[in-house]
Amino acid sequence: MVQTTKAIQDHYSGDGSRCYGCGRLNEDGLHLRSFWNGSEGVATFEPRPYHIGIPGYLYGGLLASLVDCHGCATAAAAAAAQGEQGPLGAGPLPRYVTASLHVDFLRPTPAATLLELRAHVRETRGRKAVVEVTISAAGEVRARGEVTAVPMPPTWLGTPPAP
Amino acid sequence: MVQTTKAIQDHYSGDGSRCYGCGRLNEDGLHLRSFWNGSEGVATFEPRPYHIGIPGYLYGGLLASLVDCHGCATAAAAAAAQGEQGPLGAGPLPRYVTASLHVDFLRPTPAATLLELRAHVRETRGRKAVVEVTISAAGEVRARGEVTAVPMPPTWLGTPPAP
Repeated sequence: MVQTTKAIQDHYSGDGSRCYGCGRLNEDGLHLRSFWNGSEGVATFEPRPYHIGIPGYLYGGLLASLVDCHGCATAAAAAAAQGEQGPLGAGPLPRYVTASLHVDFLRPTPAATLLELRAHVRETRGRKAVVEVTISAAGEVRARGEVTAVPMPPTWLGTPPAP
Repeated sequence: MVQTTKAIQDHYSGDGSRCYGCGRLNEDGLHLRSFWNGSEGVATFEPRPYHIGIPGYLYGGLLASLVDCHGCATAAAAAAAQGEQGPLGAGPLPRYVTASLHVDFLRPTPAATLLELRAHVRETRGRKAVVEVTISAAGEVRARGEVTAVPMPPTWLGTPPAP
């Protein structure tokens, strides 16, 4: 249960690190950093003051974005932890991408409050991972999400999708 | 089937117009503008160059955010269209907020491409509206979303959520 000091996203390759939500190389992005503690992905996130839905209330789309990135990072780290080469650090970590995303907004989330994320892989089906994510603020779970994540086809890097 | 020139969000009250995704008064926001064509909510959106998941591919969290705001706007406009005072313009439009959000990412979405959104209320249950949203790019549906939207409690305006 040792939490590594390197974020899961720090193990993505250069071109895999340009995600708006969690890429360290996206200058305009949110820079979510997720950590693997041996069984779960954990993260904290400080929303910007403008991330509101209405004054005082956090923007739901931000929560959905965090569920998405944290879910994929947790899927990648969990898969690495199952691998023969040991968890994280044996070369660039394969990226996972989202096939589907679900978020239940359980209660309002105060704006400008530190968010705490936890995620675990609930189920794997072939290469697909179903990841459950919770987001808490001020000690209460505010949103519960589910991400169905799949390994990104390696051909995507450097090849834009067909228009 | 006349598309109004005023966006649905232009009918929200001042404090209802500070949403990061679609508030005209949020200086740092995305400024999504949704239009009611008599039966559907329609919108277009031009992502910023930094809204990427990996180079060339649009960020999924942005699509989820657009589904969220466009779904709620469509729910509000559809409810107004059912009202006795006729659709949109008879006073500030009540805001809807999201109880749950689901997005299926059907195929990759090219980055920096104009997005086209369509939405309709599939079902109402009491005051709850289930809204289906599609997002297309380059003529193909890329994401399909579902928003369960509920009227925002009026007390929320001016009252931050309990921490």
